[in-house]
Order: sequence, then structure tokens, then C-alpha cells
Amino acid sequence: MSTAELKVALAQMEVIAGQPETNLATIESFVVRAKDAGANLVVFPELCLGGRYLGNRWQNAEFVNYVASFDERVCTLSDGIGIIFGNNVPIPASGIDLPSPEADAYLSDVRFCVDGEWIDPEHDCDCDDDCDCDGDCHCEDGCDCGCGGSPVYHLALEGIDAHIAICIGDLSGSGELVSPTMFDIASDFAGDCDLIVDLAASPWVAHPLAQTLDEEQLDGLEDTALPPIVRVNCIGMQNTDKAVLAFDGNSTIYLNGRASASCRDDFQEDLLIASFDFDEDTVAFMDEGRPRYGNVDEKVLDGIVSALRRFDAQVFPFHPNWVIGLSGGLDSSVTAALMALAFESTDRIVGYNLATRYNSDATKMNAYELAQALGIRLVNGSIEGIVKATNEVVSLYGYPEGATDGLVLENIQARLRGHMLSTFAAIEGGVIMNNGNKVEATLGYATLYGDAVGAISPIGDVTKVRLFNLAHLINARFGKTVIPLNLLPEETADGYNWETMPSAELKDAQKDPMKWFYHDWLIESMVDNPQFSVEAFMQAYLEDKLASSPVAKWIRFYGLDDPNAFVEDLEWVIRQTANSVFKRIQMPPTIMVVRDTRGFEYRENQVKFEQTACYRELRAAILAM
Amino acid sequence: MSTAELKVALAQMEVIAGQPETNLATIESFVVRAKDAGANLVVFPELCLGGRYLGNRWQNAEFVNYVASFDERVCTLSDGIGIIFGNNVPIPASGIDLPSPEADAYLSDVRFCVDGEWIDPEHDCDCDDDCDCDGDCHCEDGCDCGCGGSPVYHLALEGIDAHIAICIGDLSGSGELVSPTMFDIASDFAGDCDLIVDLAASPWVAHPLAQTLDEEQLDGLEDTALPPIVRVNCIGMQNTDKAVLAFDGNSTIYLNGRASASCRDDFQEDLLIASFDFDEDTVAFMDEGRPRYGNVDEKVLDGIVSALRRFDAQVFPFHPNWVIGLSGGLDSSVTAALMALAFESTDRIVGYNLATRYNSDATKMNAYELAQALGIRLVNGSIEGIVKATNEVVSLYGYPEGATDGLVLENIQARLRGHMLSTFAAIEGGVIMNNGNKVEATLGYATLYGDAVGAISPIGDVTKVRLFNLAHLINARFGKTVIPLNLLPEETADGYNWETMPSAELKDAQKDPMKWFYHDWLIESMVDNPQFSVEAFMQAYLEDKLASSPVAKWIRFYGLDDPNAFVEDLEWVIRQTANSVFKRIQMPPTIMVVRDTRGFEYRENQVKFEQTACYRELRAAILAM
Repeated sequence: MSTAELKVALAQMEVIAGQPETNLATIESFVVRAKDAGANLVVFPELCLGGRYLGNRWQNAEFVNYVASFDERVCTLSDGIGIIFGNNVPIPASGIDLPSPEADAYLSDVRFCVDGEWIDPEHDCDCDDDCDCDGDCHCEDGCDCGCGGSPVYHLALEGIDAHIAICIGDLSGSGELVSPTMFDIASDFAGDCDLIVDLAASPWVAHPLAQTLDEEQLDGLEDTALPPIVRVNCIGMQNTDKAVLAFDGNSTIYLNGRASASCRDDFQEDLLIASFDFDEDTVAFMDEGRPRYGNVDEKVLDGIVSALRRFDAQVFPFHPNWVIGLSGGLDSSVTAALMALAFESTDRIVGYNLATRYNSDATKMNAYELAQALGIRLVNGSIEGIVKATNEVVSLYGYPEGATDGLVLENIQARLRGHMLSTFAAIEGGVIMNNGNKVEATLGYATLYGDAVGAISPIGDVTKVRLFNLAHLINARFGKTVIPLNLLPEETADGYNWETMPSAELKDAQKDPMKWFYHDWLIESMVDNPQFSVEAFMQAYLEDKLASSPVAKWIRFYGLDDPNAFVEDLEWVIRQTANSVFKRIQMPPTIMVVRDTRGFEYRENQVKFEQTACYRELRAAILAM
Repeated sequence: MSTAELKVALAQMEVIAGQPETNLATIESFVVRAKDAGANLVVFPELCLGGRYLGNRWQNAEFVNYVASFDERVCTLSDGIGIIFGNNVPIPASGIDLPSPEADAYLSDVRFCVDGEWIDPEHDCDCDDDCDCDGDCHCEDGCDCGCGGSPVYHLALEGIDAHIAICIGDLSGSGELVSPTMFDIASDFAGDCDLIVDLAASPWVAHPLAQTLDEEQLDGLEDTALPPIVRVNCIGMQNTDKAVLAFDGNSTIYLNGRASASCRDDFQEDLLIASFDFDEDTVAFMDEGRPRYGNVDEKVLDGIVSALRRFDAQVFPFHPNWVIGLSGGLDSSVTAALMALAFESTDRIVGYNLATRYNSDATKMNAYELAQALGIRLVNGSIEGIVKATNEVVSLYGYPEGATDGLVLENIQARLRGHMLSTFAAIEGGVIMNNGNKVEATLGYATLYGDAVGAISPIGDVTKVRLFNLAHLINARFGKTVIPLNLLPEETADGYNWETMPSAELKDAQKDPMKWFYHDWLIESMVDNPQFSVEAFMQAYLEDKLASSPVAKWIRFYGLDDPNAFVEDLEWVIRQTANSVFKRIQMPPTIMVVRDTRGFEYRENQVKFEQTACYRELRAAILAM
């Protein structure tokens, strides 16, 4: 073949954290497929043997060095083909002192081998050796991409100059544009190499914070000598503390900054072959054109299902039953449907309707119909007896009649549901599925050790409004009504029609206190973007500039165009969010959908933050309107 | 005064995170005291206005810039005195993208003002402006000390050249030696300045990972021109997620690397005055010589009490009652005593003995005597009725007689204790105190939503063996037997005598499965030092080199000199630790005593880690002994 022709295979593999033997087997199968396709180079993701999210195990030399020892076994696979892959570097005998779990990336490096031989990188490092950056140091880019330093290698390959880098940039939510970060670094090498290979291990979120280039900037690129970029990302599920992360793959080839061909972005493995002719300056793709998502919630649905399926397989390999409380409300109905989509069989799902006197026939019927539609076991009964027993024990301990009236009794009911689900799980040898949504978790509208129990929270990062969309998509996917329609509002010009509104059903005629749609938007804005400016929002309200805002309609609907009501509600949301940190600290792990955790759960503190001077001024001005 | 004489006040203040107004008032009072003492320079800690552990609030420009705005108000206090203090820098309008919570330190900077005027630093920065290091860049040192980049300022001060730095090093546990990290950086400036001022916001742990210089190295320093180092640290309590951190202060002046005078290290505010005569090259201290701890457990006791008192005051300013389950066992007894030491009054402590048929008269009597000795309310009763009701609900849901026998019933009892404590707390308008110790938490010998409930865990980072020491110290401090002596083992030459051994009392004649002393050591080694080598431990066992080990005696006592028993037990500990990550993820926040969290909780993942090849070989070799 012409030395100027390069047939590259993008190996979008599933990486399982902590399992190098399993990952090596996956690598081997992809190498075989790449050779069969006539590729002379196959590219694997970053940290594709040990995984990225290993927590404190990153500081354990025995394990990290064990993973590094797999390099040689990959090298033996490179007979007749070039293999580029990411792996961690060994920990020196002196040990390391990692400043933070993010520091895993300090140990992330690239490997290149051909015909069983290692190709050494050309270092042209101009930075301090102690700064943990092998090769060129791009500290600020490392920081931007959360990788804490990006080693960039320079290799001579098939007569072509190629830079090989790790995680040099984030993609936009659409995956269609290269981010400024990625562009800035890549353009450092414009004219100076023929190809850039970028190895990634980037978890998916629906709305990453990374900005994207606008069309004008992209058109500008046409004139630059920006080389093609081959970015290979993994798929799978990895977790750290409370963050359960899904990896969508979406490995992509960028020409002049534009995505020209991509692997699947639906959380599945894929192999894409690209033939670069550097003489003719052309690229040809084999079987290009994967289906792309038409709407973000379609992808959210697949992302949750993918993470749930893999979490179950990796964390509970003994295939336990999953027990779930089915109240007949929207949250538990959607969660049950997600389980049915995720697990190989619905035999492992057991639903329990844990009724008290306050549960309506309507929701009980919903639970029954949902279980029928999904074909899952539903066990009915009442927990009134144990609620009564709780009151008796309370009297036994000397408290007067009525001591548990009101909110105390509401929490008793919720907590006893958690207790009974835990008991049923123990009897079934199973685990509990959490049902809580993001609005409840943020406002603390949940009972600790009650409805906040479970091994994992599939919709804990999903607002109620997004649940409406998921519910419709789920019904469409099942081709029938699985999620009862009475749970879904019908939006009108100035509000909604809603047959069965959200209720905890812990007392008579109870309705959730949330201002749906408005609070969903406010919480998503404040929680998912810590840089969100509450003060700018107040300023806009003060200057009557919210007319074009997505929530203008709901501000009217809930009467928040009255300044007193607006301030009272805003402070309720801020106060509830701050005062419920102690609950979230003890809630189950959550599948990350929107939050850009960068490998962390959302980091909160039990701190009373002073109101800023500007906030106090704006508050006064609004109340004086 | 001679321009060569400098009277420095070390202002060891309490910093409350998120409360700049409160912290400014503290700063003002220290400035007054420093002026009264005739100081011409007063030095405050790092980030002394907003605090260090602000979680995601670090990304919120409105709050961070509000804290930065306090600079001017501090400057107005500098009439007739120089003030050096740490504060965060404002977030630029463009916003920031912090790679991790550790990145708070990227925004940490120093300030210097005299007579209401700002003294600007002389930058001699030779690093990339985008690397987040203002002033000199010491990336590797920044990483070592966990500060992610140490801006080092160079200021002309009273005719004396002084470098002002942030957190240039960790101290040893004893606080008596300067660490290599600190020495390395400081020595960069040897000969090149007269004084080094180091601002710190370093949480205390009993055994930091930082190494210290040996005597020989220190003697070597005598000959160097290492300038005096003035290090000022804060006191107080700050928290992030599950880590509740205590700050011990221990602000120190180092001459030739040796601590020459220190502020109190008992978690209290302090002001130390030092007069430097740079002509005579002498230092004089006013009221030097604070009492130092004779033993580490004395300090652990004060550290826990300090963190508990301040957590209660900051997080629960409304002074709620604290409810605690008093089983009469060691863990709850020590925890109750810690509360009595921490809170201003024992009126806020309510103990509950939540007995079932399995609770012995001995432990009930212990609970009674403890409550008497501490003067706290103890409410007695039985939870048998609600245990029975649970079984009735189980039958109601169609499960056969005996479905809850065995472990299921044990967990039901533990969970109902959590439920009743939550109910009592709700009735009392109070919060729950967690009782779990570190060995239980690590091995997962706790029931989620049962004994693992609570707003805070005071002894969750304390092994059982350390609890014995704390119990004796507590009895000494109260001057009477508060912790019943039957709970404390009497160590003998080859084992121990122990009247009432630890038991969960969830079934007849139950004893905890832990191998006390041996497991305490193993867990402390593995958990607190992720770099601990299990393989080296196995190698030592294989080569019979554990004779000198602190656990040699216990290996014999528990019959682990039998290779099969040794391997079986070791794998049980490793397996239990790994399989209980899901519990720890949902456990209460814990006061950090030993774990060097560097601002994080211990970071764990639900990952099945492959056994390394070396581990498998060693295992086989031991079994073949």
C-alpha cells in the first residue's frame, strides 16, 4: 500500500472498570475484526484496560501496576497491524501522593505498538518533569477537560506524522461540533502533523458545559491546515461514589473541525473503518452513517437503560430480584418501565403496593394496570398494622396520645415503606430500586430511610417535566399504554389539564407543593449549572425582561408576577435546597443524566451561605415594585 | 523602631465556611489584640473570610466575588499595622470551569495591606498565564500539598524581604517537624529572603501521610540559610459531603526547619507574638510555650469533641435535641460521653434503650449507669410489638411462616431501631446521633437504615481498639467511671480478659465476628493508606517475618498462624470491605480522625477488582506452606 494511505479502525469498546482480563478479551476481538477489515491501524479508548473511575484504588501500586502489566499482552496482538491504546502508567516504587481522585488522569497515558514492537514517543517536553505531564504540557487544556494534564505524543507512523493525545477536548451535546478546547489544542499542531489521534474515556451527560464553535468559526477552519482528528471513546458504565456514569461512545472523525463520520452514540460497541489518502487528501468511510438521535430525551431514555442494565450486571452478577414500591404514581411507574427495558427478564422485578388509608383507588388501579402492562409480579397489601404498632411503641415510651400527628405520621408511613421494602428485599434475596425524581431530591421532599432508600436511583437526575417526555416515549416504545395517561398533564395555552396530579398520599387530599414546570426549570438551572446567576434572574424579573423566558407562562400561571409571591417562592426553593443537603448525602447512587459530574457526584456542603449584598439589594427592590 | 525589627502576630482564628461577615468580625478583634500587643504585622490564615470547603459554590461567581469584596473592609483595619491574610480571588466574568472541588485552591490567594494601602506583590512568574498559578508557579509542590498550584508572592516589608505563600507544606502528626515538601519549597528561597510567611487552611488528621525530615536532615539545615518560616493555620470545623473536618490550628514558627514556638494545637483560637531582630538574627516570643499533647488519643478526643460541638452549632443553630440509641455497648456509651463533652448542656441529649428479647440485663444496666453518670435522660421500653407487626405485615403480603427467620429478623430489629429513633427525633424536633465505629463501617457489619442512621458519625473513623483508649481517657476526664469497665478488655501477655464482649444482641448468645486488635490493625492499615501493600503483608507472612509486627501476638491468639485460617480470614476482610461499599455510600457524614481526606470523603466505587497475578501466586504459596 502507499505509505501515504492509512486505513484506521476506530474500536469503540465497552470498558469495565477494574477488569483488565475482561477488557483484554474485548480488545483482542476488536483487533481481529480490524484486521479482517484490512485496517493497518486500530485505535482503542483511553484507560481501556483498567477503566477510569477506580477511586482510591488509583493510589494502590499493586493494582495499578497489575493493569499496566497488560501492555505486553496487547503488544503481542499487534502482529501485522498498528495498535494505539490507552492504559495507566505504573506507579513508581516511591509511591504517589494524588491530590484528588481526578488525579487518576495523571496516570493516564497512550501506547503504540506495531508487529509486536513498541514505538516510542518523541518527547519534546518543555515543562518541569515533576509536573506529572509526560510529553508536551498543556496544563490549561488539561484543566479544561478535567484530565489534569494532557500528555501529547508525537509519533512517526506509516510515513505520516501523527500526534496522539489523551482527552484533548469535550464534545458538544450533539456530538456534531468540536469544542473550542479541542480546537485550540488541535490547532497547535495545524500544519505540523497529518493526523491527530485522541483517546477518550468521557462519560456522557445530556448537556455538557463545554461550549461549541459557531458556524462562523467553523467556516474559518476551512482555511486552516487543521489536520483530521480521530477521537475514540469507550462505552459502558462506571461509577464513583454516588455518580453512576454512562458512556455513549460517539467516537468521531473530524475534518476541519466538523464531525464527518461517527460510531454509534447509543451506548453500544461499534467499529468504524476510515481510509485516509494523504496524497489525494481524501477520506473514505466503510459503512458510514449510523442512525443519530432525533431528540435528546430518546437518548436520555437509552442512557438510563444502558447504565441500569450494566450496573445490575457488574454490581449484582448473581442476578438478584429487584423490589420496587409501586404507588401508581408517575415516578414509580416510569422507574418500573425502565427496569423492564433494562433487564433481560421481568421475572426479576417484584412490585409492592404499600397502601395506607390515604392511598386512592385511582393510584392503586394505576399500579395494577402498570404491572399488567409490563408483566411484572405485583404484591398488594396494607401497612396500616405496622403504622398502628409504631404508635403503640411511641406510647410505650411515654409519649402522649397524638404525639405522632401531622408530619410525624407522614414520615412514619414513608419510613415504614422503606422498612417493608428492605424486609421484602431480604426475604427475596434481592435489592431495592429507588423511585425518587430530581425535583424531590433537590427540594428534600423525600423521607430519609423512607422513600429515599435503594441500591440505585435511575431518575434521581431527571426532572418531572422530563419524566413526562420519557413516559410518552416509553408508551411509544412498548406500542401500548404502559404509563397511565391520567398521570401526564396536557399542556394548554396558559397552563395544563392534569387528571391525577403528583401526591405523596400521606394525608387526605394531599398534593405535592411543587410548582411544576417552573420549579423544574429553576432547579435544572441552579443545580446543573453552579454558575447560574440567581441575581441575574432577579434582575431580569425586576426589569420585566422574562417575557421571552421559557418560564414566563408559568410565572403567570402560578401568580408569581406578584413580586411578594415571586420572592417568597424563590427563597423557599433556595432554602429547601440548602436545608436538604443532609438528605442527599445519604441518598442512593444516581444515574447521571444532566449533571456534568466530571467523575464526582455533585459536591455539596452543610454550610449556611450568607446572602450576598447584591442579592439583598435585589430582593428589596423587587419587594418594592 | 528599627527597620530590621519586626513584631509579628500569628492570628490563629476560627474560620466559618460561607460566613464572611462573621469571619470579618473575628479578624477585626484579632487586629485589635495584635495592635495592643505592639505588633507591626498580623498574619491570618488562608481563605479566612469565606472558608475553604464550599463545594460547588466555588463555581458560583456571585458568592465567590462577594467574599472577595471583603478585602477592602479588611484593608480599612490596617491603620498603623500590616495585615497579611488569605482570601479567594474573584471569578472573572468569563466564568471558570473547575476540574474538581480541589480546584478551590486555584482561587486561593494572599493579600497584604498597611495603613489602608494595598502592597502589590512583585510577580516574577515564569509560567504560562493560563495555568491558574498567579506569581511563581510551583506546580509539583502545589500537587504535593494538595493546593493545586501555589502562588508565591514576593513583598518588600519593613525593609525585610519576605516571601508570602499559600499552603507550601504539610506538617507531621507531631507538628514538630517541617515536611520535606515544605522544606523543598522554602529552601528555594534560602538566602534570597529574610522571612517566609505561609498561610494555611489545613484540616487535622491524627496521622497525615506527609513524611517528615529525620534528625540528620534537620541538623543539615543548621548550616543552610533557610529563613524563618511563619505558618498560620485556622481552627474550626468545615465539611464536604461525608467528611467533617477539624482544624487544630498549631500555627508555628520554624527556625532552621525546627518548630521554635507554636500556637495552641487543641482546636482553639490563639494569638502568638514573635519579635524578629534581623540585625541580631534573634527571635523572642511573648508568652511562648503552650501545653502540648502527651499522647495522640488525647488529641483525638479533643478533635472529635471540637468537630462535634462546631457541627452542632453551625448546622443546627436552632439547638435541637439529639436522640441516641443506648444499648449499653461500648460504641453508644463512648458516643454519648462525647456528646456530653461537646454540648453546652446534657439537657439536649435523649437516650433510648430499644430492647428486644435478645438484650441482656447486663447491657441494660450499663445503659442505665451511663445515663446516670452523664446525667442524661434515658427512656426505656421495648420494640417487640413492632417487630411482631412486621412479621404480620409480611404474612399479609403472602409470605409463609418463618420467612423472616435468621438474618432477615436480625436486620428487621436493627432497622426498626432506626425507624423508632427517627420517629422519636421527629417528635422531639431533634436529630439522630450515629453510633457506628470504623471497623463495623468498613466490614459492613451494620444494617443500612438501621444502626447506620444519623446526622453525623462521631466515631465512624475510630477503630474499636482506639475506642478502648478513648473510654479510659473519658473516665479520667470525668473523674469517675462513665464508660462501664466490663466493656473494656484487659490485655494479657497472650490475649485479653473481657467481661462483656461486643455483641449486636440480635439473636441468642451472639458475638461480633471481628477478630479484635488484629482486624483493627488490618483495617486501619488498608483503609487509611490506599498504598498499603496486602501483597507485602502476605510475603512477610510467607517468610515468617511478622514476628516483630504489632499483630504477631494476635495472629497467634486467633490461630492465624495456620495458613488456611490466615488466608480465609484475610479474604473475608477484603471481601466484606468491598461488598459493603454500597452501605458506606449511604452512611452519615463522619468526623475525620485518621483518614487524610484532603477535603474529600474516602472515595470508593462499586467495582469488582480483579485479584492481581502476584496476589494469586502469594495466596497459593501460603496455602502450600
